[in-house]
Amino acid sequence: MDGAGVLAGVSHGTGAVPDDDLARLVACLLVVRCSGHLANGQRRYPRWELDNATLQRLLGLGVGGVILLGGSAAELRLRTRQLQAWAATDLLLCADVEEGVGQRFEGASWLVPPLALGRLHGDDPAAAVELAERYGRCSGREARALGLNWVLGPVCDVNNNPANPVINVRAWGETAATAGALAAAFVRGAQAEGVLCCAKHFPGHGDTASDSHLELPLLPHSRERLEAVELPPFRAAIAAGVASVMTAHLLLPELDRERPATLSAAVLTGLLRHDLGFEGLVVTDALVMEAITAHHGAGEAAVLALEAGADLVLMPADADAAMEAILAAVEQGRLGRERLEASAERRRQALVSLRRSYQAASSSLADASPEPLNLLAASGSRAAEASEPLGPLSNGPIAADQRLALELVQRSLRHQGGRVTLPAGSPAAAPAINLIRVDTALGCPFLQPTAPALARATAAGFRPVVLDGCSPSPWRIGLEEASDCGADGQDGDPEGRSTGTPITADGPLDLARLGEGPVLLQLFVRGNPFRGSAAGREPWEAVIRQLQAAGRLAGLAVYGSPYLWESLQPLLEEGIPAAWSPGQMPLAQAELLAALGLGSSAGRGDGFTD
Amino acid sequence: MDGAGVLAGVSHGTGAVPDDDLARLVACLLVVRCSGHLANGQRRYPRWELDNATLQRLLGLGVGGVILLGGSAAELRLRTRQLQAWAATDLLLCADVEEGVGQRFEGASWLVPPLALGRLHGDDPAAAVELAERYGRCSGREARALGLNWVLGPVCDVNNNPANPVINVRAWGETAATAGALAAAFVRGAQAEGVLCCAKHFPGHGDTASDSHLELPLLPHSRERLEAVELPPFRAAIAAGVASVMTAHLLLPELDRERPATLSAAVLTGLLRHDLGFEGLVVTDALVMEAITAHHGAGEAAVLALEAGADLVLMPADADAAMEAILAAVEQGRLGRERLEASAERRRQALVSLRRSYQAASSSLADASPEPLNLLAASGSRAAEASEPLGPLSNGPIAADQRLALELVQRSLRHQGGRVTLPAGSPAAAPAINLIRVDTALGCPFLQPTAPALARATAAGFRPVVLDGCSPSPWRIGLEEASDCGADGQDGDPEGRSTGTPITADGPLDLARLGEGPVLLQLFVRGNPFRGSAAGREPWEAVIRQLQAAGRLAGLAVYGSPYLWESLQPLLEEGIPAAWSPGQMPLAQAELLAALGLGSSAGRGDGFTD
Repeated sequence: MDGAGVLAGVSHGTGAVPDDDLARLVACLLVVRCSGHLANGQRRYPRWELDNATLQRLLGLGVGGVILLGGSAAELRLRTRQLQAWAATDLLLCADVEEGVGQRFEGASWLVPPLALGRLHGDDPAAAVELAERYGRCSGREARALGLNWVLGPVCDVNNNPANPVINVRAWGETAATAGALAAAFVRGAQAEGVLCCAKHFPGHGDTASDSHLELPLLPHSRERLEAVELPPFRAAIAAGVASVMTAHLLLPELDRERPATLSAAVLTGLLRHDLGFEGLVVTDALVMEAITAHHGAGEAAVLALEAGADLVLMPADADAAMEAILAAVEQGRLGRERLEASAERRRQALVSLRRSYQAASSSLADASPEPLNLLAASGSRAAEASEPLGPLSNGPIAADQRLALELVQRSLRHQGGRVTLPAGSPAAAPAINLIRVDTALGCPFLQPTAPALARATAAGFRPVVLDGCSPSPWRIGLEEASDCGADGQDGDPEGRSTGTPITADGPLDLARLGEGPVLLQLFVRGNPFRGSAAGREPWEAVIRQLQAAGRLAGLAVYGSPYLWESLQPLLEEGIPAAWSPGQMPLAQAELLAALGLGSSAGRGDGFTD
Repeated sequence: MDGAGVLAGVSHGTGAVPDDDLARLVACLLVVRCSGHLANGQRRYPRWELDNATLQRLLGLGVGGVILLGGSAAELRLRTRQLQAWAATDLLLCADVEEGVGQRFEGASWLVPPLALGRLHGDDPAAAVELAERYGRCSGREARALGLNWVLGPVCDVNNNPANPVINVRAWGETAATAGALAAAFVRGAQAEGVLCCAKHFPGHGDTASDSHLELPLLPHSRERLEAVELPPFRAAIAAGVASVMTAHLLLPELDRERPATLSAAVLTGLLRHDLGFEGLVVTDALVMEAITAHHGAGEAAVLALEAGADLVLMPADADAAMEAILAAVEQGRLGRERLEASAERRRQALVSLRRSYQAASSSLADASPEPLNLLAASGSRAAEASEPLGPLSNGPIAADQRLALELVQRSLRHQGGRVTLPAGSPAAAPAINLIRVDTALGCPFLQPTAPALARATAAGFRPVVLDGCSPSPWRIGLEEASDCGADGQDGDPEGRSTGTPITADGPLDLARLGEGPVLLQLFVRGNPFRGSAAGREPWEAVIRQLQAAGRLAGLAVYGSPYLWESLQPLLEEGIPAAWSPGQMPLAQAELLAALGLGSSAGRGDGFTD
């Protein structure tokens, strides 16, 4: 791939004399998606992730932002350098790293979901606020070290609806006050490390029971109700100086009968800009989401978003079509050029503030980590880079962030009962069972074969039986459709979404089929974009009763949903070892199982290394 | 981690005045194992993969080789630079990349197993030899581009025992002549690209039905039989100039009644050095394997191997203990210092030849790829590196290697019958089933949720049901132990090996439990170190008969074992769409399914990009 011809597409299909300045102005307002992996063939979602040739062409045209998903921390560091080297302008490089950079990019810190701190806030608000700020520090520091300069968080939605399939534990609170206090603390921490934050999903996605990745949810709330519940966390984030706000694909008929918030001038310009006084960047949620594409073409959706008051257009279904449509709208006088220039100016100001806060950042990584913008040539010697290719992250998170990750897991862990033990008697006659439920075993980032939930139970004599949406049914009565396999979409990944009915069951487990031994039940259940929580709709209460009635419940571990834990915990007989962690990652598994007597805690291990 | 104190361990426990030269001499003969990932926390097998502090200490002491597993191509490139920067000497950097570098490191070429060419050799020997040499070219080129200089292949074992659980499709042939011709061609191709090759597992591991990772196999063959079957491929590889030979953990009582080949002077010095006249490097197979550790301590095994005639010691169970024991053996006069110096000299000569062949390498990557040794500072500009961080591999394999990978898949594919179609009638009433059997779904590198075997069948209306060693039993009668989950060890990975009885079944599938619709049966079955082929011992012949009797066999795909295919193919009723590919990777899935009418072939796609 050479550099020649990159600009050939600049007047691509506009049907008018190209105006290079206008084309670049339009291009810089787009944020396209690519994989964090380097090679085309490594893309997990090639339908949504641009191939390298297209990416290089679009960045050469002046496209101003990229959202990344996939790949390890090391790959991301290489990728962000590559993208910036291809780009005609300073890039906004972002990712949905809501739960630590390690949530998306292996090798960085993977933290418990924000709702863990929301829960803590009720008991100890000062501690929760302090931890939320450190959570932001960690996220901002690692994002910047890997070349990202825009963290797509905090979620400012109030999760006051436990059935919410898409926000759920991603929220910082179940009340407006908690969500606001913690989201603001996160913003302070992350932005102090030299990245931009993004409060989402405006004006509030917490009270929906449907997934806007799959359909357009409707929020019937009045303005008064919004002021009481949905808006305060956004006000708090704005007061904390959040650099950007992301719109929600929600219909709020009390504000705008026709258009979803993302495309609504009443919401973006009226409510957000004027009433809340937000002067930063307004970015749409991904325009490829079904809530938008079901109703509007790729070009028209982008035009409508800008008309409504958005500054940046995230993941247009077709970037070329979006640019063409915007150019046409300007030529037709539908969109004022000064409207786009104002957005570009906000974008420029954000980059300036970034440079300023980067220079001021006082964190432990500040001296050693690479500069976020076009300053690559200045940093480090080649020999130092060879031995420490990710700078201070070369050996994983720094000690302070390892301590934070562990503290968050330990403070949010709930456990009761004694140690998980095998009953006396021949294990050969009735081998113990480690019954695990997870959304999707294939490609599961937290259930590698050596993950604690598997390895520690195996070491204790429990053989694994893993249920996911593709397993043969474990239920006693009949066979229900199990088709959320292959639906491992993440936030913003419409590919491979569920195409059938999730597992449901009228009766409890078919125990004869599972075998005779005691059962350690481990449930990895939380709301997930695209997937909802099929596992959460299964009859786990009946299973608890069933296993206890048979004297076979050796222990219970719930990873993720506090709501599932709260429904099961009261059913437990005295002494049954049981625990909940809001986290699903290996560290959460290790700490939870240590609390149940399976293996040891990292806090009693080798300590932390830089 | 600073450099000070790295040498503090040089006299570690020897109990004598340290002899730094001797200590370095000993150290350079060791090959230790680490993860290709950068961070300690990313290690998949922390029990076997050294942590970074230990690694840096040992390399600082002069340890001369590292075997890598895990991580992507991008991570490996960073990792090999890091290791060399930590090392006191030029390193031998190796990996078990027998089936293309992409077999172990995602982003590079993943080729069909060698036995695919062994099969082709019977029909078209010239084509097979030419493809084997290109196979070697591709492997050597990509290994070198990522910083490896030692390819642990070719397997020279003759797979004349279809029940072999560990060699199987890794072999280049089922006869001595085929295996020898193709292994030699591979060596010529790979070494021409500037890497060392390694013929393994001497004197021949093909005719065993047990796995030396788990126990010590016994080969009762006479010297005459070895000359007829086992030895010719090694003679061919030696004649082709193979730089190294790896020993097998096998007991051959006709050659040595007491010691396995790895520790036997009769085999290594008598047979390999004297009789076969091999003058290159002799390296042990991993000394951590159970066949060795069950009988010898970490230190003693290393001493015995060197005494027997090995030059390099691979993966001693404890590197410090091995060094101490070797030093003690020299001090006690048990091992002559000149014996070790001769090995070090062979090692030095191998590195010299490497430098020479590297400079002569004429491949398309030669100009652009990084130097294999201590020449990092000389290569490339920072800006070029930012946009093409892996050099010519930044966008995945080069076009020539993409073509090779596709040609290998297409030439080895066997298919019959028509297109897979859904029968007329309501799919809702009887949804079609995509029944997949795979050893381990968790962490499976070729079955991501968007893999063709899932996505293409889903697109055609088949819902996935995935069986692995951890699934609830799909069989009609009773429940058998299913415990090969968590046993995803790879070659040289004793961690997490199978601890129970694999799935067996007396009867065919419990069809009522699977549902009513037609079944596309996809079997990913091949011999695997640590795992054997539990799936291969299941009653798939009975399943074929059962599904056909019920009129429900929509199609059959076998990925991997030719022996399984050959047992099932004759049972198929006329017109049933069915195919076999020796490969299991996504490209093989895509081509096989394209042949069955599900999706299109890459040969008819976008073509290849550099």
